[in-house]
Amino acid sequence: MFAKNLRMAYLLDFYGAVLDEHTRLVMEAYYDDDLSLAEIASDEGISRQGIRHIIKRGEEQLVFLEEKLGLAQEHEKLGSYTEKLTVFKERLASSGDTDGADLIGEIIEQITNKGF
Amino acid sequence: MFAKNLRMAYLLDFYGAVLDEHTRLVMEAYYDDDLSLAEIASDEGISRQGIRHIIKRGEEQLVFLEEKLGLAQEHEKLGSYTEKLTVFKERLASSGDTDGADLIGEIIEQITNKGF
Repeated sequence: MFAKNLRMAYLLDFYGAVLDEHTRLVMEAYYDDDLSLAEIASDEGISRQGIRHIIKRGEEQLVFLEEKLGLAQEHEKLGSYTEKLTVFKERLASSGDTDGADLIGEIIEQITNKGF
Repeated sequence: MFAKNLRMAYLLDFYGAVLDEHTRLVMEAYYDDDLSLAEIASDEGISRQGIRHIIKRGEEQLVFLEEKLGLAQEHEKLGSYTEKLTVFKERLASSGDTDGADLIGEIIEQITNKGF
């Protein structure tokens, strides 16, 4: 339950802005920079157990948000179309349908920008 | 600042699931069912001022989430493409590009489903 995982890194990226700054920085050190609890504890000047507690509480907040809102999952589903849309856009462009290609280009940009 | 508005109703629809149930129900009565503070107060058996306080606190939570995450705004931007995509889908279908029309149909469904 406390293992580092991609899912949590994704939720951190998606919802991390709602965490208080210190929690977010500690979680980014752990999930994004792959530092160990001991390394973060040393950097922050608090105990390894203290860091573990901060991360656990942050994880609970991120999981709560996703359980309630489900927006990260919805975004993932939409993101899974990016490749298909890119291929389709190229097909439209090469068939001379520039209006269609432009529209698809805007959709791809909107999907990859931030989340939606 | 306390006037009913569409923006808050939209945020309530988008993020309301994170509110505690009582706050959500009071806010839905106010924003979605358009009841007055006095009517909700009477239904809930608490003061009009108490209802005002619950709504104000709930509004702060919704605004906080949107300020931090900005997901409702991103979703609105994507939603603004729904009509264009629908027209494009019909154009693809009538030109015999069923693969393209199907892909666009899936994107429209994903955008209108839940939020993304």
